[in-house]
Amino acid sequence: MNTDHPAIQYHLDSRGKIETAIKSPLETPEDLALAYTPGVAEVCRTIAVEPETADLLTNRGNTVAIVSDGTAILGLGNIGPAAGLPVMEGKAMIFKKMAGVDAVPLCIATDKIEDIIRFCKQIEPSFGGINLEDIAAPGCFEILERLERELSIPVFHDDQDGTAIVSLAALINAAKVRGSEIGTLKVVINGAGAAGIAIARLLVSYGVEDVILVDSCGILSMDRDDLNIPKREITSRTNPRGLGGDLATALAGADVFIGVSKGNILNSESVRSMAERPIVFAMANPDPEILPAEALKGGAFIVGTGRSDFANQINNAIVFPGLFRGLLDARAADPTRSMPADMTALKVAVAVAVAGTIEPTREQILPLVMDQQIVPAIRAAVLAQE
Amino acid sequence: MNTDHPAIQYHLDSRGKIETAIKSPLETPEDLALAYTPGVAEVCRTIAVEPETADLLTNRGNTVAIVSDGTAILGLGNIGPAAGLPVMEGKAMIFKKMAGVDAVPLCIATDKIEDIIRFCKQIEPSFGGINLEDIAAPGCFEILERLERELSIPVFHDDQDGTAIVSLAALINAAKVRGSEIGTLKVVINGAGAAGIAIARLLVSYGVEDVILVDSCGILSMDRDDLNIPKREITSRTNPRGLGGDLATALAGADVFIGVSKGNILNSESVRSMAERPIVFAMANPDPEILPAEALKGGAFIVGTGRSDFANQINNAIVFPGLFRGLLDARAADPTRSMPADMTALKVAVAVAVAGTIEPTREQILPLVMDQQIVPAIRAAVLAQE
Repeated sequence: MNTDHPAIQYHLDSRGKIETAIKSPLETPEDLALAYTPGVAEVCRTIAVEPETADLLTNRGNTVAIVSDGTAILGLGNIGPAAGLPVMEGKAMIFKKMAGVDAVPLCIATDKIEDIIRFCKQIEPSFGGINLEDIAAPGCFEILERLERELSIPVFHDDQDGTAIVSLAALINAAKVRGSEIGTLKVVINGAGAAGIAIARLLVSYGVEDVILVDSCGILSMDRDDLNIPKREITSRTNPRGLGGDLATALAGADVFIGVSKGNILNSESVRSMAERPIVFAMANPDPEILPAEALKGGAFIVGTGRSDFANQINNAIVFPGLFRGLLDARAADPTRSMPADMTALKVAVAVAVAGTIEPTREQILPLVMDQQIVPAIRAAVLAQE
Repeated sequence: MNTDHPAIQYHLDSRGKIETAIKSPLETPEDLALAYTPGVAEVCRTIAVEPETADLLTNRGNTVAIVSDGTAILGLGNIGPAAGLPVMEGKAMIFKKMAGVDAVPLCIATDKIEDIIRFCKQIEPSFGGINLEDIAAPGCFEILERLERELSIPVFHDDQDGTAIVSLAALINAAKVRGSEIGTLKVVINGAGAAGIAIARLLVSYGVEDVILVDSCGILSMDRDDLNIPKREITSRTNPRGLGGDLATALAGADVFIGVSKGNILNSESVRSMAERPIVFAMANPDPEILPAEALKGGAFIVGTGRSDFANQINNAIVFPGLFRGLLDARAADPTRSMPADMTALKVAVAVAVAGTIEPTREQILPLVMDQQIVPAIRAAVLAQE
């Protein structure tokens, strides 16, 4: 352990970043008799008879489980559940700080699809929502689709939904600054895992006509016979020019690069091969596909990364606190409500709401993660959905 | 929902009793860059390479999961996981208040032995210990035994271990006040579920020679052919006089009644049938087997219940905060350590430590749940174990 590293020091200082706290009086034997036995029995009996009161009588309605199997942590890959815990604690901090949502990290020792689905269904009585996190593709697609159907509480996979929403928000504002019609942009997405496929799905739904996905074997095209089902499905709706080849082929003349792959794979020459004044979102964490200075050297007009220490942070941390604040508040208003009927409409509405929180510039296409305006804007967009 | 009930009002006031809190600085973009991406990546990498650092770099080492399937909530029975949540939140409050332990309620939607075992093993990467709670017998015995072997973090079943420890502590002090040698007492335990069997096991191990267990079908004797395996096992070590019959038969001449069954099954006449100056622990929650006034009317010398609104509360809430404080601190000192080798010795040591925190009287055989001396005393007893 490198105890000189500032992030290690930061974590050692308090042995982690979150804790539990008591929110009701607990000073006297009388308090104890209300909070615990015998008083609590009346509360248990009430929930047993009227299950919808659970969200009023416990903290369930404000509590989200952050469930991860540790198979796709940041850009670090499959480093296991214990090693993913610091990321989940970081998410829990942001949930609380930005949106007052109580979140519990649950890094679990299994990477089997059926196990993860069963686990999430088992914890449903204790949580008002489930935030799936850093679960590798392609398993994550089936897990999310099944849970959306089989749970009666909201479920999001941050690496799909959150990343797609924040990417669309960033692209809406970047196009605005560049003076482009978003639907006409040529977009290359590098990385066809959870994030890449979800971004492509949302951009296509939003009307972006020329989206090309690239994975480690090259451009996704219908000519390839090595594509899994989610990749085939999205390929059928993208790559309208039927391009084949490598990332460089895809990039030539493209207006937009969206990287959700791994660090340091582009240089200024790659950016120079793109269209005039290109938009570069190098979102791999912790190391972006290209550093901002290098991208600007190559002529990039707007550069964003996933990190908080460069300009234009494009990170799902902008989205998930407000999204769950809205979903939990929608449930509180109507306990029979789980997920909105039209998830795509919800995601577009949230992206538009995020984009609308600022007047964008080249140096600031999105609000800062800690901007207090974001959560209310997203919450309102969620509550406006059917 | 009876909103006039004071316990309902107490729970509605704050919508539950616990929440999450942030324990590291999170005010600036620099803080965010340490707590979250990019800084957190170094922390994740460190844990991936040196797994034992997880308890230093996250809150795991101070966090306990309270896992329940809702099958045996208080004395209310199988009311399901959601209805058990208020009890688990109450336990989490007490954990934090008394021992600074962060505890997370996980009421789960399954009551299958293999599912519960699998669940606990899946959450091991996120927790420093597991407190099983209100899981019905006989499944709870197999679950605890398997998890003790298969987990590398401490696991306790509060209704077995906690209740047994606090009952032994109470009996040590009650015998002292009565001037009796504890080994010679005739003890009747009513209820042969998780608590009753665990209490019997610990009393026998401590040297109490004449223990009789009674279930809803009568005295547990080797003549009965309807006993499940845990009941047969404990019967082979109890009931030395080979008694058969009902609770009244068992009670006649007994020195001690320990009730872990259900409310209002004894009256003053039952107490009068016992030996002179009997000890009555009517521990069913929320309604004791006999109310204290009624037991005293029948000649009881010492009366205890599980409740905080009568004298002599005998509740595992006295035990679990200090027990986990000690176990977590033992792990922090030596991360390779999981459970002590001799669990019986540990339980006896903790019971003796609890009993030793006060000079007992008829009206106070145990310290109050909120007595600040208990946790340090239990912690020291745990740390003194090998």
